[in-house]
Amino acid sequence: MKKPLRLSIILFDGFTALDIVGGYEVLANVPGIEVEFLAATPGLVNADTRRLALLGYRSFEQTLATDILYVPGGPGVFKGVNDQALISTIARLHESNTWTLGICNGVELLGAAGALQGKQVTTNWFARERVAAYGAQVMPKRYVRDGKLITGAGVSASIDAGLYLASLIAGEELAKTIQLGIEYYPDPPFGSGTPDTASAGAQAMVRMFEESAAERIEELKTPY
Amino acid sequence: MKKPLRLSIILFDGFTALDIVGGYEVLANVPGIEVEFLAATPGLVNADTRRLALLGYRSFEQTLATDILYVPGGPGVFKGVNDQALISTIARLHESNTWTLGICNGVELLGAAGALQGKQVTTNWFARERVAAYGAQVMPKRYVRDGKLITGAGVSASIDAGLYLASLIAGEELAKTIQLGIEYYPDPPFGSGTPDTASAGAQAMVRMFEESAAERIEELKTPY
Repeated sequence: MKKPLRLSIILFDGFTALDIVGGYEVLANVPGIEVEFLAATPGLVNADTRRLALLGYRSFEQTLATDILYVPGGPGVFKGVNDQALISTIARLHESNTWTLGICNGVELLGAAGALQGKQVTTNWFARERVAAYGAQVMPKRYVRDGKLITGAGVSASIDAGLYLASLIAGEELAKTIQLGIEYYPDPPFGSGTPDTASAGAQAMVRMFEESAAERIEELKTPY
Repeated sequence: MKKPLRLSIILFDGFTALDIVGGYEVLANVPGIEVEFLAATPGLVNADTRRLALLGYRSFEQTLATDILYVPGGPGVFKGVNDQALISTIARLHESNTWTLGICNGVELLGAAGALQGKQVTTNWFARERVAAYGAQVMPKRYVRDGKLITGAGVSASIDAGLYLASLIAGEELAKTIQLGIEYYPDPPFGSGTPDTASAGAQAMVRMFEESAAERIEELKTPY
């Protein structure tokens, strides 16, 4: 039997759940991949809504190295880029792994970890300037590969980027099988997923929401 | 201020995470919706992979009624249809609510709760016969509305069904804004999300995987 591949998903306070679960649902179904959730301290970590919590059951220190590093985004990134434990863990696991997957504004965390200099990447549309400031060339694409670094656009792009990474790891036929397993023939009721297609009002509202997100989630209380 | 709407997401052992998080990520962003996760006993509930756990922080009994009931699917449904606490909770919350959202083979749980007789619904492609046996007319669609009942196809359809329900609750403009917020302009690397487009090999593998899923997850151990 082939050695299993370790997929380490990084949790931090204020992550966005779909940034994680889109790619997780694809990659956890690749035979031989073993998923683990890492947190600064093992225990529950709260999503940006303060209504959903995921369990991180290994500490950052417990995982000395990994095969696949998965860095999600969310409003918590605003604080996260200055969190030394988080950033040094990302830098350390990125150094010796085979693949790194960054989603949404989680790509900024990779920048703070020194992983973006001279790299071609994508990110959430409102994080493009901040990611470019880390020396990356930001492409307005759904997912981008540069060597071992795979990056995805905002939130729901974790599914597409996950399928792409699954095909690189296990082949196109297996990735297509997983796509059927999660019945992914997306068909949104509206076409409004990009700044180019959304109304000016929707763009302004999302920008305002995102810019205030870090402060807003500080005020939200969990019901648990 | 308008009264908040309660969105109650039902957790059970062996749920599929993306069945929940796709719709949650959309609906939790509708202003005025308050999300809660219900479990038979408050605490962690394991997903089908046994590698991801979500926190259910209210017991089935603690929520006497809700505005929006959200029933996900997963391999746990095979046991779930015979779980009296689960089925009676779904039946009770469906009786007096404004909307019910069923995703993937979670629609079978609604059938066991007596909510499908004479209804038009969709479900995961390999669950169509079992759902039809509850007296429903199964449509091969991404999402279907019949009165207050919204159903979605497999796993990733929770995003599309969630956006559709968000538009019914809060209007099309708000749903489009959320679509931009989660940057949902899906662009999978392959076209293989339906039985019609997937290879015979992929179909056979998914069927085999799904048919053995309930037993398989019994043998998986959590690392926590």
